Amino acid sequence: MLNSLVSSRDLGRHTIELLLRNAEAYGNQEQTGGSDGTVVHLFFENSTRTDLSFQVAAQRLGLRTLNFDVAHSSASKGESLLDTLETLEALGVDVVVIRHQRDWPKELAGAKLNLGLVNAGSGTFEHPTQALLDALTMRQSFGNLKGLKITIVGDIRHSRVARSNLHILTELGANVQFAGPDIFRPNDLVEVPWVDLDAAVEETDVLMMLRVQHERHAERIDMRSYHESYGLTEERLARLRKDAIIMHPGPVNRGVEICTAAMEDPRSQILRQVSNGVGVRMAVLDWCLQGGKHGKLVSA
Amino acid sequence: MLNSLVSSRDLGRHTIELLLRNAEAYGNQEQTGGSDGTVVHLFFENSTRTDLSFQVAAQRLGLRTLNFDVAHSSASKGESLLDTLETLEALGVDVVVIRHQRDWPKELAGAKLNLGLVNAGSGTFEHPTQALLDALTMRQSFGNLKGLKITIVGDIRHSRVARSNLHILTELGANVQFAGPDIFRPNDLVEVPWVDLDAAVEETDVLMMLRVQHERHAERIDMRSYHESYGLTEERLARLRKDAIIMHPGPVNRGVEICTAAMEDPRSQILRQVSNGVGVRMAVLDWCLQGGKHGKLVSA
Amino acid sequence: MLNSLVSSRDLGRHTIELLLRNAEAYGNQEQTGGSDGTVVHLFFENSTRTDLSFQVAAQRLGLRTLNFDVAHSSASKGESLLDTLETLEALGVDVVVIRHQRDWPKELAGAKLNLGLVNAGSGTFEHPTQALLDALTMRQSFGNLKGLKITIVGDIRHSRVARSNLHILTELGANVQFAGPDIFRPNDLVEVPWVDLDAAVEETDVLMMLRVQHERHAERIDMRSYHESYGLTEERLARLRKDAIIMHPGPVNRGVEICTAAMEDPRSQILRQVSNGVGVRMAVLDWCLQGGKHGKLVSA
Repeated sequence: MLNSLVSSRDLGRHTIELLLRNAEAYGNQEQTGGSDGTVVHLFFENSTRTDLSFQVAAQRLGLRTLNFDVAHSSASKGESLLDTLETLEALGVDVVVIRHQRDWPKELAGAKLNLGLVNAGSGTFEHPTQALLDALTMRQSFGNLKGLKITIVGDIRHSRVARSNLHILTELGANVQFAGPDIFRPNDLVEVPWVDLDAAVEETDVLMMLRVQHERHAERIDMRSYHESYGLTEERLARLRKDAIIMHPGPVNRGVEICTAAMEDPRSQILRQVSNGVGVRMAVLDWCLQGGKHGKLVSA
Repeated sequence: MLNSLVSSRDLGRHTIELLLRNAEAYGNQEQTGGSDGTVVHLFFENSTRTDLSFQVAAQRLGLRTLNFDVAHSSASKGESLLDTLETLEALGVDVVVIRHQRDWPKELAGAKLNLGLVNAGSGTFEHPTQALLDALTMRQSFGNLKGLKITIVGDIRHSRVARSNLHILTELGANVQFAGPDIFRPNDLVEVPWVDLDAAVEETDVLMMLRVQHERHAERIDMRSYHESYGLTEERLARLRKDAIIMHPGPVNRGVEICTAAMEDPRSQILRQVSNGVGVRMAVLDWCLQGGKHGKLVSA
Repeated sequence: MLNSLVSSRDLGRHTIELLLRNAEAYGNQEQTGGSDGTVVHLFFENSTRTDLSFQVAAQRLGLRTLNFDVAHSSASKGESLLDTLETLEALGVDVVVIRHQRDWPKELAGAKLNLGLVNAGSGTFEHPTQALLDALTMRQSFGNLKGLKITIVGDIRHSRVARSNLHILTELGANVQFAGPDIFRPNDLVEVPWVDLDAAVEETDVLMMLRVQHERHAERIDMRSYHESYGLTEERLARLRKDAIIMHPGPVNRGVEICTAAMEDPRSQILRQVSNGVGVRMAVLDWCLQGGKHGKLVSA
């Protein structure tokens, strides 16, 4: 039975640790391979870096990948997702990487498929591989996440990145807090501290700025005033701790979430996050294909 | 000289048998290869399972595949198909898999190209690899097609699947009959019996339901009344012979051609058809690349 | 440090000669490989043959290629090209092949990227790999370009192909002249002779017809009268020297730039240009990956 990664809550601390260690081992290898299987991307929502990152990961593992043009497929013309997945299984596909503008499709719960499914971002639900690569990036900077103070800033209410990070970072012992405009404060997640950004920058270890979704908020938000109130301005950058790190899932709206000086600041880990994404997706794809409850360790 | 598969009528019984035996041999192998060549898909009409099936087939054979985005190419901006194919030949392509909303392009008849061309569905003309995979599926269920009664139901008039199946199944000794609304009865093919579906379900060995093309018939057909009159309803499913099989080229419109109970019925071979498509396309691509009148047998 | 090919002017005669010799060596080999690296196509402007040609080249070299759907990416939603390229670098990409409707993006000048960049056609600026394959085609026909008379005909003013060819052919010792409608005479390049096509056909060694960009000139140009005045008509074809060659970057508008008889004339090298494109792109990709000022010679 293949493994699936739908929610960060599917992963206990043991498996998270295994995936992070394997991701790091893969990251040090130029050429890997040895795995066997066929992966297809079912992207109902556009993505550049997640798509490319999974492509690179599959290629490095030596997996076969299929091009599935969802926009022109029967999947977008009324065929149920379950029928599409059964067809992919019959074609010999092993792992399906799904990105969806909706929350993870309910019809998949309890489906009997001999496929590994990977959530590559779904609605406002979860984006677990992003959270894993974020955790890996923090571990590389700090060695350990235990007791780390992490401030996630922006549209928490609609953020699948914040939701996946909250679980994984907490599981690894970190203390997560949120900041942002009141209209973006979530109704659930009341256990997480809601803090003032200007106070937080001076004490946080990690400042994770979320992307403002122009397409969603163009009418409600003035970008310049957003930057002043909730962005990493040059002024806040100056007050950020010397040993803190700056993170962003990308793509960055320069001058909105982050000023250009912060992009180029040595504390920025934004490009390292991208690099870590490849190793994390290799570890996840490999873990799906291995099956079994925990998976095995890759030698570096 | 490479082989081409444009029409089922290109294939005599000897070659059909060879392709089916090779398809079955390939179907049992996880990893094959050893073939060499470059394949490109020229899809003027969208398709999911045919496209993916040829992709998987090419990859398992170890062939190189190119991405040709027809919609944004010069092929869709007035360049003649022949000029496009000559360009592909000059680029070193060996086999071109063509899907077209028109009947097989007349300008290709007699073209001097050192390319193998495979018809992956063209207009209302033919879809020979679909017929081959259908024949393989029946052979797996019944051992032999000689004397088998096969009822194809739906829009026969516009169906390339029905036309290709008629030739290949007849060549293998089966008795094909058609059923469906009178407006879908073809003007040609008068030699094929036109039967009553309600009578046929009790005696047919194979019930092959064709897809209703929403895009073509939305105005003329009421889907609910189509299901009652020409679909595989639960009532007809109950009267279908115990040892009969249910087939459909996919994607299925659940509740139109076929009720959900029939999809899940053990007599349904719909997903097996999908699986068989991979082996059949491997056999066809390999046969094209081999060239020669008959081709050689693959060892299982 | 990887090499980039942005402008033909990046290349001195020594490197041009090396690339042409390597292109020819690659052209004689069915299967090559041994190179290692990841290539991505960033095509902001559609292309069929350039895209496919680079795909085939990368596959023959054994490189990994990524599918980057620019139209649906953050690159087309306001992310700066530089941010996109830094992301690709972080993902482990080695070479980015860029095609752009604009002249080569100014923001890339002086960018510090550990990437090889290849210009696959940009605005009216340059298309250096096209000029290299044109030079290779001429060398195969004439042995040497020294003293060769080459007439380029059409919309010189907007032609990136003419600009790249002018530099490379001149560097190799050829004499380039232009012909075409006065409205297409460039304001710069005044050092290049502007000649009468009817006189030129009888004395030129190479007649290179440029494509008329329908999309750009539909209102200003009547295609029939263009053919009469500036196309390779049957009458001009009859007067063309026996040992001259006919070239066109493709795709050809039959009956506009060139009559059908000229396409089929033995003097036409149009399909050979396409074939040579593969070897040239192999040589260029390999040269980018090697880095170093001159690059090394490939053994045939």
